[in-house]
Amino acid sequence: MTDNNEWAQPPSFSDIERAAQRLDGQAVATPLLESAMLNKLVGGRVFLKAENLQRTGSFKFRGAYNRISQIPDADRAAGVIAYSSGNHAQGVAAAAQLLGLPAIIVMPADAPKIKIENTKGYGAQIQFYDRFGASREEIAQCLLKETGGTLIPPFEDAGIIAGQGTCGLEMALQAKALGADLEQVLICCGGGGLSSGSTIAVKNYYPMAQVFTVEPADFDDAARSLSNGRIERVDPKSRSFCDALLSPSLGRITFDLLRQHNVQGLSVTDDQVSNAIRFAFENLKLVVEPGGAVCLAAILANKTAFSGKTTALTLSGGNVDADVFQKAIGAQKIR
Amino acid sequence: MTDNNEWAQPPSFSDIERAAQRLDGQAVATPLLESAMLNKLVGGRVFLKAENLQRTGSFKFRGAYNRISQIPDADRAAGVIAYSSGNHAQGVAAAAQLLGLPAIIVMPADAPKIKIENTKGYGAQIQFYDRFGASREEIAQCLLKETGGTLIPPFEDAGIIAGQGTCGLEMALQAKALGADLEQVLICCGGGGLSSGSTIAVKNYYPMAQVFTVEPADFDDAARSLSNGRIERVDPKSRSFCDALLSPSLGRITFDLLRQHNVQGLSVTDDQVSNAIRFAFENLKLVVEPGGAVCLAAILANKTAFSGKTTALTLSGGNVDADVFQKAIGAQKIR
Repeated sequence: MTDNNEWAQPPSFSDIERAAQRLDGQAVATPLLESAMLNKLVGGRVFLKAENLQRTGSFKFRGAYNRISQIPDADRAAGVIAYSSGNHAQGVAAAAQLLGLPAIIVMPADAPKIKIENTKGYGAQIQFYDRFGASREEIAQCLLKETGGTLIPPFEDAGIIAGQGTCGLEMALQAKALGADLEQVLICCGGGGLSSGSTIAVKNYYPMAQVFTVEPADFDDAARSLSNGRIERVDPKSRSFCDALLSPSLGRITFDLLRQHNVQGLSVTDDQVSNAIRFAFENLKLVVEPGGAVCLAAILANKTAFSGKTTALTLSGGNVDADVFQKAIGAQKIR
Repeated sequence: MTDNNEWAQPPSFSDIERAAQRLDGQAVATPLLESAMLNKLVGGRVFLKAENLQRTGSFKFRGAYNRISQIPDADRAAGVIAYSSGNHAQGVAAAAQLLGLPAIIVMPADAPKIKIENTKGYGAQIQFYDRFGASREEIAQCLLKETGGTLIPPFEDAGIIAGQGTCGLEMALQAKALGADLEQVLICCGGGGLSSGSTIAVKNYYPMAQVFTVEPADFDDAARSLSNGRIERVDPKSRSFCDALLSPSLGRITFDLLRQHNVQGLSVTDDQVSNAIRFAFENLKLVVEPGGAVCLAAILANKTAFSGKTTALTLSGGNVDADVFQKAIGAQKIR
């Protein structure tokens, strides 16, 4: 696939299998964890796909590496450009560094310090912008003209979606190996790259499973889009501390894929997310960032809906600043 | 093995294999993780056995379940008694609950709140004592007389050592499956149950590997014992925030096993441990308690000693109170 147009088609299950081959030995095959305490609390069986343990601290490395590794030789020297609140930035920077390409990342000035520092640490050049003012897409377009580089979009791209889909592929294969019959799968959702790619893979092995996207309450555009049958957008005044999930809308490819598989949308409040971060600290011994904790938050806030069932969910990232984490784990315990 | 005397013999490798069979489906087969960032920092290959993800948040469940499951039917109703700073307490309480035996745990009044609460949560009765005053062994002996129950010792017992050894067994098998040639293995050490049991298993698969115990600096009795060829004790005035590793000395069985396999001792300061907890938060996305972070601390504090080598280490537990964790991750970064 060297024609740009081909990246605007939805990936197939085979594309995800090929992505998994490319990622073999580069991405971490993250564990599918199970907690006796969480199972007891929910009254069901809950599997946790710990993508916070992924290289760069989130699933984003998967899509970035899969996409960048397919850039034609002639285009490699001009490098890659991406815009991202942080996790895609780190994924692109680390993948580009591994593959020997220069990278420029357009990041919001208020991105978590840990994400900015790590992106720099992977050797990328960073261009800051104001999240609620400037258009990151426009800045990226200017840089593309200047450098002749390749844009690595955050989600609306067949290579990215196939790469993120390897998370769902691993989840399904690990669940199969454990003899589990997944009935429900929860996947966090910003622009829909992880959720649409993983849905393709999950549905290949578990065609009867119901997949849900999970979003912050004021960023529930995917839930509304899937319910209304058209792409809805986020109110620009919306705010949430789930910095990884603030995309204004799904893409056309990701929306169509989610809809095709009858995915439904759930949402959670920042307080519920904070409670989930604390639960993961106390009981799972995992560091999960706000955007990575929304699925766990959805289960903890709606235990009866998951009682008596077998559910898998993504813990999609762990890149959280110490002060945000300290605040969450010090919060009032609510169970 | 129903005769009490048999528990005073060192376990064999076969005992560890049998323990692994008993634990199958009860204990978590914790992942052996690898971090590209840590490998780069050390200049070698480092595998992390994440026992903080174990049931009850530490490896202690392994030994407790293995030992309690072998209590003869006639003795089960009288229950079990244990003394512990917290992790063994939780392991015994959870294993007893699963196996349907009542449990009384003798705990220091200053044990981390999370360990006390969780032990209660597993249905055990708790008897508090002053860590630096009363003798927990004497209190346990009184309770044994009263109840006729079975003592589940923290380390000096063949069933406990074999159970903890399943951690090393899994580590070795996982490393083999990854094609790794382990040259050095670091295991945290209090009374030596985990380190002696795991050494037996590791040496079975990697006879040339050098095993090291790691202890807090002022609790380096194992290092001194192994160096001097006799069981040395900790100065009673010693203090450390590694609450899981404050045993006054090795046991006779654990010392003999460690010595027989030419194990050597390392030690780390509380500041180095604090730094390791922060490193695990920032880069591994794992919650590790002070006693569970000593091996990682030893590597981070002595990177050149591990450069160019393949090392495996235990992250033995994650039961840490929020205030202690918050302090560690807020500390000045030292790399």
